[in-house]
Amino acid sequence: MLFEKITVVQADGTLLPGRYVGTQGAFIRYLGTEAPQGDWGERIDGTHGVLMPGLVNSHTHVPMTLMRGYGDDLPLDTWLFDRIFPFEDKLTADAVYWGSLLGMAEMLSTGTTSFSDMYCFCDSVARAALECGIKANIGRGISCFDPGQKFSNLPACREMEELFATVHGAGDGRILIDVAPHSEYTTRPDILYDAANFAARYHARLQVHLSETRKEQLECVGRHGKTPARVMEESGVLDRPVTAAHCVWLTQPDMEILAAHPVTVAHCAKSNLKLASGIAPVPKLRKMGIPVAIGTDSAASNNSLDMFEEMRTATLLAKGIARDPLALPAGETLFMATRQGALSQGREDCGDIREGFRADLVILDTRRTLMTPCHSALSNLLYAANGSVVALTMADGRVVYRNGEFPGLDIEKIRWEAVQAVNKILER
Amino acid sequence: MLFEKITVVQADGTLLPGRYVGTQGAFIRYLGTEAPQGDWGERIDGTHGVLMPGLVNSHTHVPMTLMRGYGDDLPLDTWLFDRIFPFEDKLTADAVYWGSLLGMAEMLSTGTTSFSDMYCFCDSVARAALECGIKANIGRGISCFDPGQKFSNLPACREMEELFATVHGAGDGRILIDVAPHSEYTTRPDILYDAANFAARYHARLQVHLSETRKEQLECVGRHGKTPARVMEESGVLDRPVTAAHCVWLTQPDMEILAAHPVTVAHCAKSNLKLASGIAPVPKLRKMGIPVAIGTDSAASNNSLDMFEEMRTATLLAKGIARDPLALPAGETLFMATRQGALSQGREDCGDIREGFRADLVILDTRRTLMTPCHSALSNLLYAANGSVVALTMADGRVVYRNGEFPGLDIEKIRWEAVQAVNKILER
Repeated sequence: MLFEKITVVQADGTLLPGRYVGTQGAFIRYLGTEAPQGDWGERIDGTHGVLMPGLVNSHTHVPMTLMRGYGDDLPLDTWLFDRIFPFEDKLTADAVYWGSLLGMAEMLSTGTTSFSDMYCFCDSVARAALECGIKANIGRGISCFDPGQKFSNLPACREMEELFATVHGAGDGRILIDVAPHSEYTTRPDILYDAANFAARYHARLQVHLSETRKEQLECVGRHGKTPARVMEESGVLDRPVTAAHCVWLTQPDMEILAAHPVTVAHCAKSNLKLASGIAPVPKLRKMGIPVAIGTDSAASNNSLDMFEEMRTATLLAKGIARDPLALPAGETLFMATRQGALSQGREDCGDIREGFRADLVILDTRRTLMTPCHSALSNLLYAANGSVVALTMADGRVVYRNGEFPGLDIEKIRWEAVQAVNKILER
Repeated sequence: MLFEKITVVQADGTLLPGRYVGTQGAFIRYLGTEAPQGDWGERIDGTHGVLMPGLVNSHTHVPMTLMRGYGDDLPLDTWLFDRIFPFEDKLTADAVYWGSLLGMAEMLSTGTTSFSDMYCFCDSVARAALECGIKANIGRGISCFDPGQKFSNLPACREMEELFATVHGAGDGRILIDVAPHSEYTTRPDILYDAANFAARYHARLQVHLSETRKEQLECVGRHGKTPARVMEESGVLDRPVTAAHCVWLTQPDMEILAAHPVTVAHCAKSNLKLASGIAPVPKLRKMGIPVAIGTDSAASNNSLDMFEEMRTATLLAKGIARDPLALPAGETLFMATRQGALSQGREDCGDIREGFRADLVILDTRRTLMTPCHSALSNLLYAANGSVVALTMADGRVVYRNGEFPGLDIEKIRWEAVQAVNKILER
């Protein structure tokens, strides 16, 4: 495919107007100011478009799209124990499959080409991702509430072994399996230790929830005499690359621990606000050299998977809280939501528009009222756009969304099946 | 027009499923569970729709849509003095007209049917509003930097007299002229006093900026030994109904002043964050009985006019800052953005879906992926939707937007002319 005369916005916000971008197979093979030689297949006139890297949603639970709006404006415990957990108890592999496709369709149509996920029925999640063309780092959430149970006897452990044997690396590497001990408060230090060793054995990356709420932080100190970050560190969880979601309540020593290990923070601003957890100290984390990426968390606590709104919330919140209009500028925020996210997934050749990189690309339609006038394509992208301005999404060189259509997917059927799955669960 | 079998969401969040809603002329004449007798004109199948009151944008500067993205990530002074003011110096009536139409088209397509505006070239703003069908309370911003100049000699004064004589009440009351002393820091107490008297003479409402920044608050105390709210009160500005935008830095006594006068606060959460002004204490203001409505401020500091995102930012921010997931629930937030806004404009028969009310109505398309599943129409509206899910907007019983089209408006021409206006200004 050849994008002609298009304004390229690179991951760090660099603007390259009037460029030609050619893809061959899964890769970007040409980026230049002149039309390249040879046959590149379909040509796309980019006069009215902006080409940006596909967005990376660094923390979500995509099957929970089935629970979008299932209990808002409730106390956290009521929401969890009366709504979310009973619903989840009735989930099936089939429901997870349709819920995942629904959430993935939303992500693709709003410019997200890769996401990191933590949930159960991960084979269903992987199957959905393989079908729709999105990239995913999939972690089977590991939790353990039975004091006598060992890591090796957990259902999650067997499920992970199966996942590593069957789908890890599938779809030319689009599907990667991460090891995902849910959090300190849903596991034990020995479970964390075994999970870290398990990850090492498979050369896998990790995903965890970390210091999301004040309660979590305080209870951990009560239980262990140390913070969740310290428990994670001492269990070896932070020795391998790990994406730590939330990080709202880190102490100064916690931040020093993170800075000394290969940890990427997944900042989920909207979810943290909605669940009233608080606001992660993003400018401070970045100042300490800790990589920060951006995630939506699930549609049950967001309630959309639109990374444009998530980027905007991150930058506006940083400015307003720091009372500094220069905090987290547009280019840095875009980098967090693209290249930084890709790096946190171990996808070195993703998350930017450069020759040799994977062709994970998004075209925004600049003719939209919302994108007019265009004093700066970067500014419009970051401060004005929402997912509805996405005209085309490409992952690994394949068009996965275009003007409301998903090639190879029946979106009407996906929505219908997802609603049926919800109805069946609610009836049970 | 007759909406059939539609889920109605009233201003306070009350859900009425499967309703019939009939409009005649500018008004809602039927709301019931059975199909009404008689001929209501076009019938709209509401099976896949949600019908909500038109949104009211309680504070904006719509011509500034021309400056969307014209200088972000700059210190406030640089932004104002190097970008906004020089641009504004070159504005023409024609540029304001096209910029206004551009912003109004954005508002109509995202479900806003009425807005309160403060700017200059107000005849152009009024002309644009009359043409596109939106409602507007238009205030000619009054400022005075010449110590010797009197209110009666200000250009704004003459312009206002002309506006009251010509367009106040035009379009069956769609256009109302407000009196808009810009702020304490851009006027003087005697100017405020004369403006209040001027408003009284015309039985008009007022619009002001109030306590937006810490600097404004501190400098006013330095200048007058009292806060901006006190200066406004003593000048008589608060004796008539007034919409006070921002109110980020009010003191406790300031809030007591507001509570004792007919003041509505226009909360502009995104703009206050982006310009790093801070966060207005909305739950506290409401607790003190001060009505709070919602505004986007201009596209130069937002950078969109999408009231769905503005509502969401307001509710999420309230929850996150108060660390209370029950703060500012969906129904209350919707009320602020509809009925409360209409009341602040003096439009007693607007802002809700009830028989006898003006037919300012919006249909959301519930078949969209973003709106699936639908556990609660209110929840999806408030926590998931953005303006792109609006399928139809009606103001005073007239369809002003429908599936990407604006009946009677040439949106391509509006965008083109707005861009030309920008280019001419930048070239000058």
